Amino acid sequence: MNHLLAVPGFSYSALSAGIKANSALDLALIHAPGGANTAAVFTTSEVKAAPVLLSQKHLAQSQGDISALLINSGNANAMTGEQGEKLAANSAELLSSALGLEAYNTLIASTGVIGVHPKPRAFELGIPQLVDSLNADTEALSAVSKAILTTDLVTKHYSISHEINGRSYTFTGISKGSGMICPNMATFIGIILTDAPLNAHSAQYVLNTISFSSFNAVTVDGDTSTNDTFALMASKVNEHDSEMSEKLNDFNSPEFEELLECFFEVALKISEAVARDGEGATKLLRVVVSGAESSVDAKQVAFTIAHSPLVKTAIFGCDANWGRVAAAAGRSGVPFGSNNLRIEFASILTCENGEAVAFSEEEALAALSKDEVSIHVHLGLRELHESDFDSAFTINPNEGVAGVMTCDFSYDYVRINGEYRS
Amino acid sequence: MNHLLAVPGFSYSALSAGIKANSALDLALIHAPGGANTAAVFTTSEVKAAPVLLSQKHLAQSQGDISALLINSGNANAMTGEQGEKLAANSAELLSSALGLEAYNTLIASTGVIGVHPKPRAFELGIPQLVDSLNADTEALSAVSKAILTTDLVTKHYSISHEINGRSYTFTGISKGSGMICPNMATFIGIILTDAPLNAHSAQYVLNTISFSSFNAVTVDGDTSTNDTFALMASKVNEHDSEMSEKLNDFNSPEFEELLECFFEVALKISEAVARDGEGATKLLRVVVSGAESSVDAKQVAFTIAHSPLVKTAIFGCDANWGRVAAAAGRSGVPFGSNNLRIEFASILTCENGEAVAFSEEEALAALSKDEVSIHVHLGLRELHESDFDSAFTINPNEGVAGVMTCDFSYDYVRINGEYRS
Repeated sequence: MNHLLAVPGFSYSALSAGIKANSALDLALIHAPGGANTAAVFTTSEVKAAPVLLSQKHLAQSQGDISALLINSGNANAMTGEQGEKLAANSAELLSSALGLEAYNTLIASTGVIGVHPKPRAFELGIPQLVDSLNADTEALSAVSKAILTTDLVTKHYSISHEINGRSYTFTGISKGSGMICPNMATFIGIILTDAPLNAHSAQYVLNTISFSSFNAVTVDGDTSTNDTFALMASKVNEHDSEMSEKLNDFNSPEFEELLECFFEVALKISEAVARDGEGATKLLRVVVSGAESSVDAKQVAFTIAHSPLVKTAIFGCDANWGRVAAAAGRSGVPFGSNNLRIEFASILTCENGEAVAFSEEEALAALSKDEVSIHVHLGLRELHESDFDSAFTINPNEGVAGVMTCDFSYDYVRINGEYRS
Repeated sequence: MNHLLAVPGFSYSALSAGIKANSALDLALIHAPGGANTAAVFTTSEVKAAPVLLSQKHLAQSQGDISALLINSGNANAMTGEQGEKLAANSAELLSSALGLEAYNTLIASTGVIGVHPKPRAFELGIPQLVDSLNADTEALSAVSKAILTTDLVTKHYSISHEINGRSYTFTGISKGSGMICPNMATFIGIILTDAPLNAHSAQYVLNTISFSSFNAVTVDGDTSTNDTFALMASKVNEHDSEMSEKLNDFNSPEFEELLECFFEVALKISEAVARDGEGATKLLRVVVSGAESSVDAKQVAFTIAHSPLVKTAIFGCDANWGRVAAAAGRSGVPFGSNNLRIEFASILTCENGEAVAFSEEEALAALSKDEVSIHVHLGLRELHESDFDSAFTINPNEGVAGVMTCDFSYDYVRINGEYRS
């Protein structure tokens, strides 16, 4: 991970409120004293946690005018009925009155076990302490990135400082997620903070534009969670610079293009970090599908491959069993015919024109033993371009191209998830 | 498994042709000297193995008049191009000329590694030997049930002898399948043989009717294979009994109803056996979803739960983490709202009206430690009926009900599939 940068216009705090069984950090606050123009996307699950429903309401009510984001780990506050709803609402009340805001200026996010009623006391005691200990330095932000973790092994963050027209802006992303990861128009918990003067409408546009190839292109186990939340918060510290404000909110300006690339870079890095730290993961796996009718079709095939337990265990076992990739593509529901199918498994050509190609098992074993492995499936409904693979992880992939980032399936995935609650 | 019964009108042979690396049985023949009215369903994958394509052609050409079924294990003959097509066609030629048939009177099925060209010599030498050693006894049929296995730990068969109107008929099913199991209008390799006088049209009707709650309700890992084949063969030995022939081919007769139940019982047992013997499985898991708009919706939710690695590892680890069931249902794509959700996890009520219910962890642990575990999710779009759960595994489930049979996800699944080809 690169060097974490605190973002002007924000302060941070985190503590151990006793929500997790151990004494690890589990409650965190991000505060924008001058407010922040905010956009967010949430889980598409039919079963949404109470904080997700509340945050969606607040975001609509405030039209993206959000000053505080509270996050707890250790308890999802999902399937917790009225009690859970009340807890989320009370937390927002407590938080907003301590900070001199309206409740609708706050967002709440949770992650952890589903279906266990959280203890209100942890929040009642924790929130005032969080407000009292807010701090704008990097150490405080670093504590936040720790406090949002569950089964994650490492903190996930990525920062860039980028100059546009002589003005320097900071972009910092933090994320958590390790299991129950398969975002669908939303993801795990991810936050990007910036001091670039972006209005709420632009922030939402940015999220929508960068999602396809970043946080909506990552999966660990196909299990979309009840709590997925991805927020972009732009502090108002540079709003006084009206010239740049105008340019950075004009979707057709070169400045906005540059801004988009900054956001995309951060989103991609903190998403990739989630795949790399997938539960029990030993390898990062990039699956790219090209030559499809559309990028949406390509994504569907890529996800089917990335979710196949047979593919994931083969990657873990360093077994060049590429036939499983063909089988997964075949059952994806996307029609393509198999006569033009081409597969590069661990960057080695194993199949062309729908037929097995001789390859060196030795070379394959070497390629599979690395900690990053790629699979490139070309469906053959379009011509193959040399740039297809690399384009998959950009804002605008080539036509008929999409990529997915995931990890392998190891003994440790089974161990971690066989005993999660105990 | 119950006692295996050979079926009048069929003979069998099996041998080791050297297709598998060890010297296990890997080539089998089922022959109906007097012919058999046959129906079959095949994989819906876009990537179909050569034998599947050939068998579909033969079944259409002969209008279900099939006298021989050749099955090999150890090599799927999938993604093998022209060479693979030629091998399948040559095998059918060899077989049919040795038996005095047309090629289109034969079916060919394969299972094993994808994308490896099979050796024609094994088939050229094996087929004449198979024809020479055909035998109608149980031992020969038992050898066939062994020869079709791959990673299976046990043979899978089920037989019943049933009297209808004073005539006794035999129904015997055999199956194989352990990984890459998620049939979709087809399944693994399954064969049901009978001497009940059924025409080919009725045989197809029977397969279509019994599929929903039997072989299309089983999954191990969500990976539909390139080779799934399920065939029903009715020998012609009792066709002379024209009175019964007429009744047993009349879809509105009580005799046909009785016949259907026999076929269903056999199909259910040999399908359940596949889930129970899933790769690395330690438990059979039955997932039933009720209270959906339709049975198709219920099936979609049930499959999403049955495919969730998080649910499957929790079952393996005896962890009553029922929230994962709610999360899987929520991401299934079926709308239901979560306010009326009700979940019985390992037959213990853990969630009602969308909210966690207190339960005894001790009781849950005891229930989860058994070798058969049930999950019942009621979506609440219809009233809950006491018979909902049990109806799931019958020919006609209650409205809005469907069930799926699967297994847990263990360390051994990872081990088996991390080193499958080696």
